[in-house]
Amino acid sequence: MPLADTRFATRRRKLASQLAAQRVDEMLVTNLIHIRYLSGFSGSNAALKVAKDLSASISTDGRYLTQVAAEVPDIEAVIARQCAQELLARVPEGRRVGFEADYVSVAELERLQEACPDNVTLVPVTGVIEQLRLTKDPVELQLLTEAADLASQALTGLVEAGEIAAGRTEREIAADLEFRMRTLGAERPSFDTIVASGPNSAMPHYGAGERTLADGDLVTVDFGMHRLGFNSDMTRTFVIGHATDFAREIYDAVLRAQLAGVAAATPGTALQDVDKAARDVIEEAGFGEYFVHSTGHGVGLEVHESPYAATTGTGTLEENTLLTIEPGIYVPGKGGVRIEDTLIITAGEPEIITRWEKELTII
Amino acid sequence: MPLADTRFATRRRKLASQLAAQRVDEMLVTNLIHIRYLSGFSGSNAALKVAKDLSASISTDGRYLTQVAAEVPDIEAVIARQCAQELLARVPEGRRVGFEADYVSVAELERLQEACPDNVTLVPVTGVIEQLRLTKDPVELQLLTEAADLASQALTGLVEAGEIAAGRTEREIAADLEFRMRTLGAERPSFDTIVASGPNSAMPHYGAGERTLADGDLVTVDFGMHRLGFNSDMTRTFVIGHATDFAREIYDAVLRAQLAGVAAATPGTALQDVDKAARDVIEEAGFGEYFVHSTGHGVGLEVHESPYAATTGTGTLEENTLLTIEPGIYVPGKGGVRIEDTLIITAGEPEIITRWEKELTII
Repeated sequence: MPLADTRFATRRRKLASQLAAQRVDEMLVTNLIHIRYLSGFSGSNAALKVAKDLSASISTDGRYLTQVAAEVPDIEAVIARQCAQELLARVPEGRRVGFEADYVSVAELERLQEACPDNVTLVPVTGVIEQLRLTKDPVELQLLTEAADLASQALTGLVEAGEIAAGRTEREIAADLEFRMRTLGAERPSFDTIVASGPNSAMPHYGAGERTLADGDLVTVDFGMHRLGFNSDMTRTFVIGHATDFAREIYDAVLRAQLAGVAAATPGTALQDVDKAARDVIEEAGFGEYFVHSTGHGVGLEVHESPYAATTGTGTLEENTLLTIEPGIYVPGKGGVRIEDTLIITAGEPEIITRWEKELTII
Repeated sequence: MPLADTRFATRRRKLASQLAAQRVDEMLVTNLIHIRYLSGFSGSNAALKVAKDLSASISTDGRYLTQVAAEVPDIEAVIARQCAQELLARVPEGRRVGFEADYVSVAELERLQEACPDNVTLVPVTGVIEQLRLTKDPVELQLLTEAADLASQALTGLVEAGEIAAGRTEREIAADLEFRMRTLGAERPSFDTIVASGPNSAMPHYGAGERTLADGDLVTVDFGMHRLGFNSDMTRTFVIGHATDFAREIYDAVLRAQLAGVAAATPGTALQDVDKAARDVIEEAGFGEYFVHSTGHGVGLEVHESPYAATTGTGTLEENTLLTIEPGIYVPGKGGVRIEDTLIITAGEPEIITRWEKELTII
């Protein structure tokens, strides 16, 4: 697969070009998501070493002998049970080797240090690969778009089959939606599906329980699919039977906030300002104290990753990054609304990849 | 819930009694599974501190204000975003505080150290809580039995509905089984469901792909459900249409190995010997080189946890622990068989909680 090889080599070249700035000669990568990002290997036990001169080695255990040869034809593979230790043992004396300080545990670092040859120094490195992952290449954008599209199709199927309905439980609806995503190609949900009905809709981090949907309920459905390494993320809030004045009022405020957030999501905009664009609308509507989380996050190999559109956000939005816009209002005891899209940030208007109706839908 | 409170307090008392041996005054617990084990709290952001004198504090953020009060009525709760730092800042000077060196990253340790008052020393601790988790109490045994029972019911439903059949894909069958588990109360699968058919059955760590089942296939189904914090784990291998001589031969060897492993799983038996009991049967049948993994593992809050019945296993089996017995034969290009039960180790014969037919089933 020459296309894939080129992409992974390009990423490793970008990483290598950062190593001098980190004052390291080689980088030991142990986070499995990062190994997949830099090599294409998708197994569950591996380590990867990338040197300043672009040479690289990957290590995995015997279970993955065939898989590593197929997925990573362009890197020398070392078969060993203790992957990281094995790669470290082969580092020439005197080198400075970076390790992923955000993911290597204190106990694991001790084992790594024992495996180092004399005069090899382990140097903590943070954030470098995450920064590379921020901007997506065309293949990544396509896979992310496909995941969002398929998840949208699953929701369409759920609604058209009448599976969101009074008399059904939250858990049944979540099971139906996850089944539809699985059938459309998901390896698993990106996170535990949320189906939060009635008073439960006022809890932004609720799951899906035994409550039975009833007429007049707000029902928030927040879901995503993991497929081929990538994730999707999308939320819609529905109304069962008839919409109360309260439901209409908060739905209208959240929808306007969501549209304002989407409109603000352009390259060069401060992430704090994207958050503010959505938050201001909810505050002006008088519900500021009930918008208790941030406006959005990146989506990619992880379902929550950089960038973060939050009141405490730093930096500006870049082209070819992904961002969710997901304001919400949660009034304890009464109910809540959240509307979430995932966007690709482009030079022009952002491209919404979670294509699904946002007007108040009564079902 | 006085019953629950007593159980969690009992566990904290056992932990506290270990602290002196670890030469620490207080233990900072940051692994979320351990926090749930020691307090009952099931949220996604928390830290727990347990002192030698049995006093304890739990910290979580504002999203969980209501939940922590409901789930942990017997411990002081501190609401903060940086949970672990907040608890450390309250430690009296001069104390030695243990931290979970297997789960705290190198970067996180630096943040914890900055949060410590003067003269507070952080001390790496490993394995203590894992050791407490090894032996299950009656409520845990009941929940584990229920999860295994419900998962078995899901498989029964799958088979009775004719959902394992020639012409269907592995992915479709996995989706059906996961849907059935979800409907029966699973919050999620314990791991990505394996449906490995034909030549794929020779790969022990295969997932579920696009291959269509055909007459004569071996089909290995390995699945579990996560429910109320606990997991189940079970494997059966089926034959589609008719069984070849090869299929009958390896099925017979694996079944005899599995029964030998179950028979050996009694308290006081060395874990190596449990592995050996199963392995010997497969070696005598001439397939030793094709049994490429260990015989079994514990199941509890994690789907893979201590004890490990492996050639490299250490220690002996104890009463009221869980263990899978899951020998397999995998002949590349031809196919494989694995049969897995989960057992509760009792003073007498082990109790098999994955109750499901083990004779060769042609469907």
